[in-house]
Formats: sequence, C-alpha cells, structure tokens
Amino acid sequence: MKFVYFFGDSQSDGTAEMKELLGGKGANLAEMTSLGIPVPPGFTLTTEVCNQYYTNDRNYPADLEEQVNKAIARTESVMGRKFGDPENPLLFSVRSGARISMPGMMETVLNVGLTTKTIPGLIKKSGNPKFVYDAYRRLIMMYADVVMEKAAGLEPKDGISIRERLEDLIDERKEAKGVELDTELGGDDWKELSERFKVTVKEVLGSEFPDEPHTQIWGGINAVFQSWNGKRAIAYRRIEGIPEEWGTAVNVQSMVFGNMGDNCATGVGFTRNPATGDDHFFGEWLADAQGEDVVAGIRTPNPINQWGRTDKNKELPTLEEVMPDIYKQLDDIRSNLEKHYRDMQDIEFTIESGRLWMLQTRVGKRNGIAAVRMATDMLSEELISKKESLVRVKPSQLDELLHPMVDPAAEADAMKLADGLPAGPGGATGQIVFTADDAEAWAKEGKKVILVRNETSPEDVHGMHAAEAILTAKGGMTSHAALVARGWGKCCVVGCSALNIDSRGKKLTVGDQTFTEGDIVTLNGTKGVVYAGELSLTQIDPGENASFRALMEIADEVRTLGIRTNAERPEDAAQARAFGAQGIGLCRTEHMFFDPERISAMREMIVAENEETRRDAVMKLLPFQRQDFYEILKAMHDYPVTIRLLDPPLHEFVTLTDDQITGLADDLGIKREKLSARIDALHELNPMLGHRGCRLGVAYPEITEMQARAIFEATAKLTEEGVQALPEVMIPLVGTHTEYEHQEAIVRRVADEVKIESGTDFPYLVGTMIEIPRACLTADEIAKKAEFFSFGTNDLTQTTFGFSRDDIGGFLPAYIEGGILPEDPFQSLDQSGVGQLVEMGVEKGRGQNGELKIGICGEHGGDPASIDFCHKTGLDYVSCSPFRVPIARLSAAQAVINN
Amino acid sequence: MKFVYFFGDSQSDGTAEMKELLGGKGANLAEMTSLGIPVPPGFTLTTEVCNQYYTNDRNYPADLEEQVNKAIARTESVMGRKFGDPENPLLFSVRSGARISMPGMMETVLNVGLTTKTIPGLIKKSGNPKFVYDAYRRLIMMYADVVMEKAAGLEPKDGISIRERLEDLIDERKEAKGVELDTELGGDDWKELSERFKVTVKEVLGSEFPDEPHTQIWGGINAVFQSWNGKRAIAYRRIEGIPEEWGTAVNVQSMVFGNMGDNCATGVGFTRNPATGDDHFFGEWLADAQGEDVVAGIRTPNPINQWGRTDKNKELPTLEEVMPDIYKQLDDIRSNLEKHYRDMQDIEFTIESGRLWMLQTRVGKRNGIAAVRMATDMLSEELISKKESLVRVKPSQLDELLHPMVDPAAEADAMKLADGLPAGPGGATGQIVFTADDAEAWAKEGKKVILVRNETSPEDVHGMHAAEAILTAKGGMTSHAALVARGWGKCCVVGCSALNIDSRGKKLTVGDQTFTEGDIVTLNGTKGVVYAGELSLTQIDPGENASFRALMEIADEVRTLGIRTNAERPEDAAQARAFGAQGIGLCRTEHMFFDPERISAMREMIVAENEETRRDAVMKLLPFQRQDFYEILKAMHDYPVTIRLLDPPLHEFVTLTDDQITGLADDLGIKREKLSARIDALHELNPMLGHRGCRLGVAYPEITEMQARAIFEATAKLTEEGVQALPEVMIPLVGTHTEYEHQEAIVRRVADEVKIESGTDFPYLVGTMIEIPRACLTADEIAKKAEFFSFGTNDLTQTTFGFSRDDIGGFLPAYIEGGILPEDPFQSLDQSGVGQLVEMGVEKGRGQNGELKIGICGEHGGDPASIDFCHKTGLDYVSCSPFRVPIARLSAAQAVINN
Repeated sequence: MKFVYFFGDSQSDGTAEMKELLGGKGANLAEMTSLGIPVPPGFTLTTEVCNQYYTNDRNYPADLEEQVNKAIARTESVMGRKFGDPENPLLFSVRSGARISMPGMMETVLNVGLTTKTIPGLIKKSGNPKFVYDAYRRLIMMYADVVMEKAAGLEPKDGISIRERLEDLIDERKEAKGVELDTELGGDDWKELSERFKVTVKEVLGSEFPDEPHTQIWGGINAVFQSWNGKRAIAYRRIEGIPEEWGTAVNVQSMVFGNMGDNCATGVGFTRNPATGDDHFFGEWLADAQGEDVVAGIRTPNPINQWGRTDKNKELPTLEEVMPDIYKQLDDIRSNLEKHYRDMQDIEFTIESGRLWMLQTRVGKRNGIAAVRMATDMLSEELISKKESLVRVKPSQLDELLHPMVDPAAEADAMKLADGLPAGPGGATGQIVFTADDAEAWAKEGKKVILVRNETSPEDVHGMHAAEAILTAKGGMTSHAALVARGWGKCCVVGCSALNIDSRGKKLTVGDQTFTEGDIVTLNGTKGVVYAGELSLTQIDPGENASFRALMEIADEVRTLGIRTNAERPEDAAQARAFGAQGIGLCRTEHMFFDPERISAMREMIVAENEETRRDAVMKLLPFQRQDFYEILKAMHDYPVTIRLLDPPLHEFVTLTDDQITGLADDLGIKREKLSARIDALHELNPMLGHRGCRLGVAYPEITEMQARAIFEATAKLTEEGVQALPEVMIPLVGTHTEYEHQEAIVRRVADEVKIESGTDFPYLVGTMIEIPRACLTADEIAKKAEFFSFGTNDLTQTTFGFSRDDIGGFLPAYIEGGILPEDPFQSLDQSGVGQLVEMGVEKGRGQNGELKIGICGEHGGDPASIDFCHKTGLDYVSCSPFRVPIARLSAAQAVINN
Repeated sequence: MKFVYFFGDSQSDGTAEMKELLGGKGANLAEMTSLGIPVPPGFTLTTEVCNQYYTNDRNYPADLEEQVNKAIARTESVMGRKFGDPENPLLFSVRSGARISMPGMMETVLNVGLTTKTIPGLIKKSGNPKFVYDAYRRLIMMYADVVMEKAAGLEPKDGISIRERLEDLIDERKEAKGVELDTELGGDDWKELSERFKVTVKEVLGSEFPDEPHTQIWGGINAVFQSWNGKRAIAYRRIEGIPEEWGTAVNVQSMVFGNMGDNCATGVGFTRNPATGDDHFFGEWLADAQGEDVVAGIRTPNPINQWGRTDKNKELPTLEEVMPDIYKQLDDIRSNLEKHYRDMQDIEFTIESGRLWMLQTRVGKRNGIAAVRMATDMLSEELISKKESLVRVKPSQLDELLHPMVDPAAEADAMKLADGLPAGPGGATGQIVFTADDAEAWAKEGKKVILVRNETSPEDVHGMHAAEAILTAKGGMTSHAALVARGWGKCCVVGCSALNIDSRGKKLTVGDQTFTEGDIVTLNGTKGVVYAGELSLTQIDPGENASFRALMEIADEVRTLGIRTNAERPEDAAQARAFGAQGIGLCRTEHMFFDPERISAMREMIVAENEETRRDAVMKLLPFQRQDFYEILKAMHDYPVTIRLLDPPLHEFVTLTDDQITGLADDLGIKREKLSARIDALHELNPMLGHRGCRLGVAYPEITEMQARAIFEATAKLTEEGVQALPEVMIPLVGTHTEYEHQEAIVRRVADEVKIESGTDFPYLVGTMIEIPRACLTADEIAKKAEFFSFGTNDLTQTTFGFSRDDIGGFLPAYIEGGILPEDPFQSLDQSGVGQLVEMGVEKGRGQNGELKIGICGEHGGDPASIDFCHKTGLDYVSCSPFRVPIARLSAAQAVINN
C-alpha cells in the first residue's frame, strides 16, 4: 500500500482531488507542483497512516519507514542537498494537514535536520551564523515543546511548560544585554542560548534533544499524528462535527529561507485586490525576511507593485522594481493559478538566494464588495459560469453594499466595550441617549444618536426611528428592537448583557467604565460589537454598483422562489421594491396604533366594558387604518400585500404611568380604580402564550371587522382609481380550524358588504399565519378554507422549542458555547425540529388544497440557510425585511444551484 | 315504503334497535309494548319522513296520510275510543323523538282531538268539566304557540308572543277572582278563558283555532318536523355535533289522564334507589294528578312504598296501601324491565280510571355511590358481566366516594355566588381568609378556613395545606392552585373571574355583595361553584365500601395500563398506595426548597456570581434533599419512583419584598444593589418559555449533580437497609438530544461515584420528560440514550397550542362557548393536535428503542378520555394525583373494554 506521496519538480504522486487521502494542504501542494509551479519538494504521509497508527495501538505500517526514506532521497535529488549532509544540508518542515483546515489545532516542527553536524555546513552556505543559530534555537524550542513534552504526554513540571522555560531564558538574555526585541540579539546570543536550551531540556524533560536528523523527523511525524487526538483537536472536531476517522496527513517539505541574506525575500499576495475586486496583482514583500515578518508589523512591508502603493509605503521599492525577473515569474504564476483554480488566490512565496518558491496557494478571502465585483468580472472574462458567479458571493456579504460599515482598519485598533448579538447589520457611530424622547429631540437638533435601552417596546418606536442605531442589554435576535431595526435596515446590537444601564440616571456602565448621555460609541451591528468612541464608517450606494446590479439580475434569472418583504410603512415598501421585492409578505398592523391620535381610541377600546362601547371606540380607528392600507397597497400596486390582523396582547397598548391612568380615566369618564383594575386584569404571566393573535378577534370580532373594512374600503378606492391592489388578509396565531373559520367568515362578510357599498369588484385572499405547532399538525383541516399559509417561524420556533425569544439570552450563550445548539434557532431555522413542522404543514396543507399559496414571513425569510430549506420544502415565496431582499434574492438563486 | 310504525296491546312494528328510524322515544315505546307492558297505544312517523319532508321542499311522501289514517284506526280499536267521536273521543299527544334526546329543543302538542264536538262526550265520560276545559285551554295555548305562531314562522306581534298574551288573560282572570294559583280556577273559568283564547288567537294570528281533529293532528306533526330546523335545535345540534340528516321522528300516542278523578293517579319511580343503590323499588305518586304535578312541588307526593318513607311524607299513604293490585302490577313490571334492560330504570306511569299505563322507561340516572353499588350488585345477581359492571360507573362518579360532597338537596336551595373552574373535586365549607399565613393561624385555632387568593404561588403552600379548600379568581385547570389542590385531594375552584379580591383590605366582592374575613362560603369543587353561607356536606369512607373495593379489583383484573401517582411527600405517596398506585410517575422537587431552612441556601445559590460560591450553596441542600428522597423512596418501596430534577425558573425562589432583599443581602454579605440587580436580571417576560427545566441544569451543572447525589445516596442507604428503592431520574424540558445527553452524563457519573463510595449496587433509570413539541419531533434521537419517556402533557399542551395555562382564562370561556374548542385542553388531552405529537413521540421513541418505558405524568393522567387515548397509544402507565388513582384504575379498565 502506498503511504507516502511525493511532490517536487513538476512531478506529483497526488492531485487536488485527493484531499481525503492527502489532506487539504498535501493535495494542494501536489496540485501546484503538477502545474509546474516551483514548490519546495517534499512528501505527504497519508491519512491512512494516521488511521492505521491508531488502529494498531500507535504502531506504523511495516514498510512506512522505507517509503519515507525513498521520498527523502527523491527530495534530496530535486533540491541538490542531502538530509544530514554536513556540507549542504537539506532541512525539512513537518506539518499536519487534515481534510479540512483546523487552524492551530495540531502541531508543526520546522528546521528539522539541523544538528551539531549540519550547522557548520549551513553557516558556510548562507554565510549567516545568526540566521543559522536562530533557526537552531527555534528547532529546539518547537521540538522540545511539541515532541518531547506534549506528544510524550508529560505534564508541565511545576505547572511551567518547557516553552515558557526556554522563553524565560531568552528574556534573561535580552535583559542582560539591555535590548527589547528578539531581533536585537546576535548570532552569538542564539548560539549560547541553544546550548542552554539543550541543558534545560535535559534537566526538565529528562532526555537529550536529539542530534540525529532521522530521529528528529520521526519525532516530528509522531507528534503530528499524536496531536490528532490531542485535547484541543478533539474539542474542535466535536464542535465542527469532524469525524475522528478522517485522520490527518503529515506533510514533510524542504525548508526554504527568505532570510538568508540580501538575495532573499518573502511575500504574500492576492491575485486580485481583495478589498475592491480590481483585477490587479496585489501583495506585499520584505527582503531578507521570514514569512511571519510580513504579517508581524514590525517592519513596514513593501508593495509588490504600483497597485499596492499607499501613503504609508509609497517611498518603499516594489518587488517589480527590485527583482523584475522574479516579479515577472510571479505574475505569470498568478495568471496560471487564476486560470487553473478559476478563482482569486491568496499566495505565499519565498525567494531564497534569487530562486522563487511558492509555499501556498488557496482561494483568497475577500470582502463583499470585492466578492460581487470578482464574481461578475470573472463571468465577463468567461472564467466562470453564471451559476458559479452566483455561488461566489456569500449572501451575507451583500450587507457591505447595503449598509454603512465600520472601517475594518479603524476597528482593528478600537477599544471594544462589549459583545452582543448582531441584530441589525452595518455600522453606526453617535452620541448615546437613554430615552426615545431624547433620541427624537437630539436628532431634531441634527445630532447623530444611538438609543441605549435595556429593551425596547412599541412606545420607543419614534426614538428608534430617529436614532442612527439601537443598543440593548437584553433581548435576542427576534426581540422587538431587533425586528424593528432590521425592518428599517438600521444598525442594532442587542442582548449585550455586560451593559448596566441606568436609564433614570442616564448612565451606562460597562465593567469599570462609565458613559453618560452624549458620549460617543460605535456599533458594529454585523458582528455585534460595541466600541468606545467614534470609528470611521464606509458606505457605497448599491444602486450605483454595476456589479451588484448584474449579480442581482443573474440571481433573478435562476431563482424560483418569490421574494417579498415585511413592511408596514409605504416608504419601507418603496425601499424594498427598489431592492427587488415582489410584494409584501407581512404587513403588521399593530405599530399603526401607537400614534397619539390613535392610541387613545385603542385604549378606549381595550378598557370598554361592553361590545357597544368597544365597537364605538374601534370604529374611530377605521379612517386611520383605511388610510394606512390605502398607502401601502398603493406603494405595492400590482403586487400582493399580506396584511396581518391585530396580533399583540392588548396590554401592550396600556403600559401606562399612574398619571397617564388618571388622565385616561378622566378622558373616558370612568373611575380611576375601575380603569386600573381593567388594566391589571389584562396583565399576563406569559403574554407570548396569552390573549393575542386571532384570540383577540374571536373575543372582540369588531376589531377584525374594522380592520377588514379598512382593508377593503382602501382596496375599493384604489380599484376606482385604476390602481391594482391585491390584499391578502392574514389571520394570525391560528391553532384550530375553528378559529380560522370564525375569523374568515367575518372578513368575507365585510368584503361582500364593501363590494356592494362601493359598487366595485376586487380580488382578495384570506389565509393564515402558521406559527403554532398545532396549526402544522392540523394544517389539512385549516387548508380546507384558507387560501394561503404564511409560516411565522419566529413564533413557531418559540413554541416548538419552548423558548421565549425575549428571554433566551439567559441561556443561549451557554448552549451555543457548549455545543448543545449549533446556532441561534431564531437566526437560522432549526431544520431538524421546527423544519419538520414546516414540512408537515406544507404537506398536509397542499394535500388538502393543491392551490394553496405558501410563504414564510418570520425572520428566517432573510437567512440563507433557511431560504435554502424553504426552497427545498417547496414554498412559493419568502418574505424578509427590505434590507435583506437582495440577500434573499441571491440565496434563493443559490438554493436552486445547491439542490 | 313504511313510514308509520304502530305500537299497542303488546304488538309493535318496531323494536328498541330501531332508534335511527324511530328515534329514541319511539323505539322505546315499541320495545315496552312488545314486552307486554301496558303502554298507551299510538304510532311513530319515522325520521325518514323528516328527511323526505326537507328534501322535497317541505312536502310529505304521497301515501303518508293513508298510513297515518290506518294507524289511527288501529289505535282506536285498541283503546275502544274514536278520534273525533262526540261520545267517547280519543285524544292524542304529538311529540318529537330524535335518535338521541335533545331536551327542550323541539315541540310537543297535547290533547289533540279536543273540539267543540268532542268536549261534551269527554265531560260525560269523565264527569269532570273542570278537567276537560283545563285540557282544552291547554291545547289551544300549545297549538297557538307551537303550530300557529312558531311553525308558521310568524314574528311575535309587537314583540309579545301569543303564549304571553294568553297567559296574561289567565292572570287577569285570577286577579278578578282574587286567587293566586291556576288550580284555584274552576271549570267555568277555563271554559270562558278557552273562548277568549280563541278570539285572541284569531285577532292576533289572523286565523281560527282549528275545530277539526285531523287538522289539529297534522298541525302538530308539521310543527314537530319544522322544529327540527328551528334556531334552538340547530344551535344545539352544532354544539353536540348531531348531523342534520339524522332528522326527528314524531310520536303520536293516545292520551291517558291521571287527573280525571279519584280512581286516577300518576307517578314516577326508579327500579332501585338512585341515591344509595339499594335494591328496592323507589318512587312517588299523587292521586288525581298529572305527571307534572309530581315534580312541580306544589303538592307533597306520596311514597310509592315503605322504602320511600321520609320525615316529610311519613303520614302519607303509599300506593301499595291505596291500590295494592296496581302496585303489584307495577312491581312486576319493575322486575320485567330490569331483567329486560339489565339496568336500573327510571319510569313514569299514569293510572286512568283504575287502569295502569306506563308512559316511559329509560335508564335511570344515579349518583356515584349508587352506580358503584348497582354495578357490583348486578354482577352478583348475574344480571350483567364483569365488563358491563365496569362500564356502568363513570370514572368521575368515583369522586363522590373519595371526597366530601356538597349535599345536593342543600345545594338546590343555595345562593350561588359565582362560577369557576372545577379544579379540585369535592365540597368544602369554611370561613374565608385572604393570606396563607392567616389560613395557617386560623386552622391552628381549629377553624375551618377557605383560602381566597387571586392566584397562588409556591409561597402559599403552607396556607393551602392548612385550608379546607382554595378559591382563586385567576388561573386555569393546571394553575398552581389547581395542581397543588388536586395533589392533596383538596376541594378547589379556580378562575372565578367574577370575584374581586382585595387581599390587603381582606375583602371579597362579587357583584354588589361583599364578604369579609371570617364570612362563610361553600365550594363545590366538582362543579366549580361558589355559594354564600354554609351548606351541609356528605362523605363516606371508600375503604369501608365493599362495592368500591370489589369494583376496583375487577378494574385491576382487566386493565393493562399501569397506574402511578404524582406525589412529592411520603404521606401523599402512602395515600396513593392505599388507593392502588403502583409507583410514582412524577415526584416534583421544587416544592422541597421552600422550607425556610432550605430557601436561604437556594437563594444563595441563585444569586451566586461564580461556580464555586454556587456549588457551596447547592451542597448545603444535599442533606435535606437526601432525606426527602430517602423518605419518598421508602414510602414507595418496591415500586418505581420517577424523580424530576429541578424545573421552575429560578426567579420563583426570589420573589422578595424590599425588606427581604435587604435581609438577604446582609446574610450573603453582598451589596443590596447588586443583589437587587441579580434578581431583576432573573425576571423573564415569558417565564414558561424561559430559563427553566434542564436549561438550569445545563447552565448550573452543580444543581443536577447535587440532586443526583441526593437520590443515589438515599438509594444506597435504603439498599443497605434491605429496602428495594427504584429511582428513575427524569430530566425535564428536554428539546434536543444534546441537552439530554449533557444531563444524563452527570447523573450517570454521580451514580457511579455513589456506588463506589457506598460499596452498594442498585438499579436505576435515567430518562426524560417529553413536554416540548421538539422533543416529540426528535424523539428518535433522544431515545438513543433515554431509558424512559414521560409525557408532560401540561406543558406540551401549552406549547402545542401556544396557550399559557395561567392566562387562558382570558379567552377560554369564549372559546368553549363559541364552540371553537370542544373543551379545556388542559383538562382533557387534545387528541387531534397534542395527541399527534404524543403518538409521534411514542412511535419515534419505540422505533429507536423497543424497550423504552413510556408514561404520562401531566394532569391528563387522571382524565378518563385521555387515559383511553394513552391506552390506545400503547403507553405503559399513566400517573395522576393520589385522589385520582381509583378513577384512573377504572378508566384504564374501561379503555380495554372500549378498544
């Protein structure tokens, strides 16, 4: 059996497809080598070795050693050096390489092959003793740590690891010499330290650092295989769901050095600009340096070419200027790699004594703007197909085009105050205020404010609207603040439990820092982070971005799911339409009642003691509601508008102060005590499971009647005006078909009345929100009458899990951290639980009524994974907040491609 | 086609089995006649006539009239009288008769055939003009009302019905004569009134009262068929789920009169005593009277024999004394009927001129004590089989043997204050108090108290225990008060929303009545009614009741479901064991923490800021919990005890006054503000969906560890003492298999530790409560590890419907009344919704693990219909509160018979 795969000098035993056997890194090195790219030669021990090692009680296959020796010989021949040769020694790196990357989870040993015998030869060859002894002490440190302590299963003596002990020796040396940086130590220092290291290793670990190259290499290989079953790796595998039997491969590769002198260099690059998507080679390099020096930030790296010039590096020479031949070779490799991999590559290279070596190539990370640009550019270049261009952009990356973002550069240096949940993407900076009224007042004065609350309620909506962003200490991804903010595309961080908010004292404490009204903070709502002070923001106009428009058009060609929006104001409807929404999937009506003129009628209705008084109060709301519906139906003309009848528990409208109660009692001409008692009676222990949704309409049919009348009178008026209005009346929170039928009868009766009264005819639908497990279980019964279902997966998630979205913050972090839940089920639909109910609802509903129109209007309607599920489940459309419409369009297209 | 079925003189066209065609009444008259029992002859128009009538636009089948005429002739021949004969007229009654009884929903006309021509003949024959004119005016009233106004579809003129108008005429007459009762009017009065009636009928309704017998009889038949589609009947059918196409039959039967003179009488009877079950003929009679006089209460009825003698009637002659021959005939009929129907019968009879006529026999209603007695007696008499004896008792009737009951006689005259939900069966009378402390203090003084609260909380438990009964204004059938009261078999009425409770002022207002502390009220917890004042109670000891014991033994022979109890105190466990429980299905542990010594450690734990402090606090609870579990496991030795780990949200333990917070802060040596903030942080908007159940154990594993340790240390101790303890550790509120596995691992680890520490071995199980829809949906995953499931259908009902059991009172009454829900789903399991999830849970669970033990421990475990469902679904056992164990045993046996 072949256990060792060689690569080098354009010859590889393996290919890119052999990731399972060679690991990601090994397969990639093989592939690059085969492409004729100069890769330091070496070989890969397969994952099969790892499995046999563990199956056979940590013994290797019999002929492994022989295969390794053959591969070493082949490597020696390519490099023209020999492993352990005192004159011209070949050094190796030994690295792990699992099927998928497990960063930092497993071990690496570099400079393997440096011994007292080979050191003189390398000094002679490099002419650089400092370089050689620095390399030697690194080998000892890594080897002692990884092989001799960890892989040997030794506990750190007295709780101090060997690595710490050796680092202490370096610190002592620096102190003695009066220097601060490692780089300030010379060759003699490293030489002397290497000797001390070996003494310490012997003393502490009880055995000698091996001075024999083959002992070193097998020690390294051993350590990598051992680390596959190290604590960190096991924990990581559990979280990421990586099976133990995948195993890791081990890559043994010739060392090349960019720090051996002037003719040496090292660099990193991207085949296109990862921040803008521009089609130019983009990178940085340093002469006489190691790869880690480029990213360490001690020396300012040079630009690789003119496209990398910035204010900071404009005086520094480019690689193109300094080594034009090498640059040309590199630029050719860039073209080859893009053509071969058909995607932008992130590369690492080293120039050793004037010879270019490619160390790595992998698909390069890019931001959203660049991703969109590259996807559409590569399509134009015929490098990729339409479908490929669609999957090149993560839907969430579109947020960068849709919202102002915190400048990543500024963010890197900023002082983080606290973490919260990323409830509304984008960035915002402003002065903090603690009440909705203050937010409104300050905003009127032209100030940018951030509204800080423990949690928000419908009464805060005016202040939330005036604010740049909203920050709350409580609540989850579907809390009131989160829902409202996302609806407006506003930045929002919720559930930031480290905040202590004193609203009355207008003070915010985080740890030992205190902020008062007017202090400036910055929120990153995409990540859910709060920073002290002002950070710069960046923003682009998606309408002006040709790549974005092109990508959206391709998405629309491919997708089969309809995309609607959740909106209750005409301006939001218009925004969503501009973003490509094809209707409204959820128009909530409750926020329409918080206007001062309306809320008093609403309260009158709520505290009414008999049907007549209640009906009188309700009917005062009719003209307002009619106007609301007129405007939204008009804004969404020719597209359907699903209007949900009143849903929240009534007590939300009567959270009143003592003074307000007295005032309201006066207005209504009833006794204060009576009013107070009525309000108390509305209090519920679990309002989410209380008297709300269609339960209101069943108990108070006049509310349903008024809302239906407002909808149909608006529709009749628009019909007369020649505007196509397509209302869909949605009965909320139905759990039994009898509830649905009760409410539907009222709606249809009113529609008939309005048709006769107005002398117009108009189409309309009546249907229901499926948001209670029982509705899914009895969907066949409900579908006998309902014309559409819209899954309200927020509430369905609440009841299926028994989780209150307002209270989940108390344990969700522990659940995610402990791997009990893979993610917040309010953010991405729980397909294995809640999803079963959705599937059942679709199956039973369509089984009864093949024409049934089915959508989803929970927050999941804007989540890519959930949209994929909706596509697979056969829904007709998803509905999401306006600023997620482009994301939904792309996700829906990807769903077609993925399924 | 045969539309008319004759019965009379021991000959019947029909039988008892023909209820669908002849209606219940018609089939029964046919059956009695065939038995040779003297029934006034007549005939039945079938339900098919009704259907054809409505199908053919309210026209009768062509030959119906001919069939009716033939039946009239046959009746005339049996009676020796002729319909319309001036000399010896035959009169008829015309009555409805549907397949099942619809009391008061349809119409009746009596004395049909009385006309100006037949009156003289009847006077001559009876010698009693008063009787004849009284009968005549009754005919006119009924006919005008039923036939001429209602069936003709006339609206009452000026809103006054014809019946009211005619009654006004009677009132005028009585006023003129200065008398108060109808019976004080004489023959002349009725004669004159009859004339006036006819004038008024003509004036108001526009047509003459018909003076022709055949017109009268067809008017009556018509009216009955019309009334099948009257408003009242339609509403009744909708509520009871009776299909329209069943139709009604019409019974036309010869009139016989018990009020024609001295040789006449009327009476009612039961073939056995319906209150005690004694095997003696039991009844009442009146000479020269109509049936309605016996029940009207104007005259005290006579006892039918010595067994009916009471203080009130002991001077009155029995029928046996007055008419020994007739009595003998009646007593023979009694024996025949019981032998034929094999059940106790409720009969009506009339003696006309010395001749006995049986008007009705039907299965007699009986109370619970009598039902049990008759079931076991009839089994001994070999009248019925074992299975029949089991179904003769409604499980709910056993409540009468298990609890004190309000004396029905006293209740009939009592002043009802308010209706509520029947949360704890039985009756109680006592002085009202408004706080748990008062309840305890007053009870210590030997007073009987009823604790009146808006709602109860765990802190009220000591007062609830001290009280005779609990009355709350809020809450549903599974509210805290209801659960606790039922657990103790205590009388309880909840959700009594008419009560206005001022706890501080110690005042209770209902409408315009006010009650203060110490006032006496009586509760009927079986019906859910509150009465002012003291009513007498009755109670028997079920242990002394041989019939009860015998019935329970038969039930145990038949049933296959196991019966366990929900209990957390050793005395409750003992009580349940005495009632036949075979283990504990739910031992809640939260109430164990409210003892003053314990709650402070509990609070310390809750407000702890780090694991170490929390662990220290938790471990203080270990000795208490160990003792708790020791006692309950001992009380239930040899039977399994399912112990549920801590379930409720932590804030339930820290509902503190300001003073208490200060005190606790002092005790704990922390700042008041800090403590207060911690308590605030525990506040949840929807605690039912919050941080509770296994979510506590996941966040604070030390709680699980302590409880597991307490359970297993108690088990080890009992094992050492030679007592068989069988603990089953139940993880609550599991929604994902990961939650279960997390908690199970802790429990098993502790079990292993305790086994080693104690050097004992003991059996135990670990399993989970299935009470979240997601647990049912993913039961296969959970069953990979869990050894048992126990369905917590209270919470499952909450989440499946999205109903909070604490808040359902706001709309449930409207839902039941409007037919939107057939019944309270917390009382009887919603089989079509929640039941689907239970079935899914069983199927998926057993599919994964065939050995899985499955039970139910929600309140439904004591509900007969739900027990039937559990039997069908294949559960292993049901668990209910101790006082429902006998009910569950009987229900489980009936489930076997019914399926």
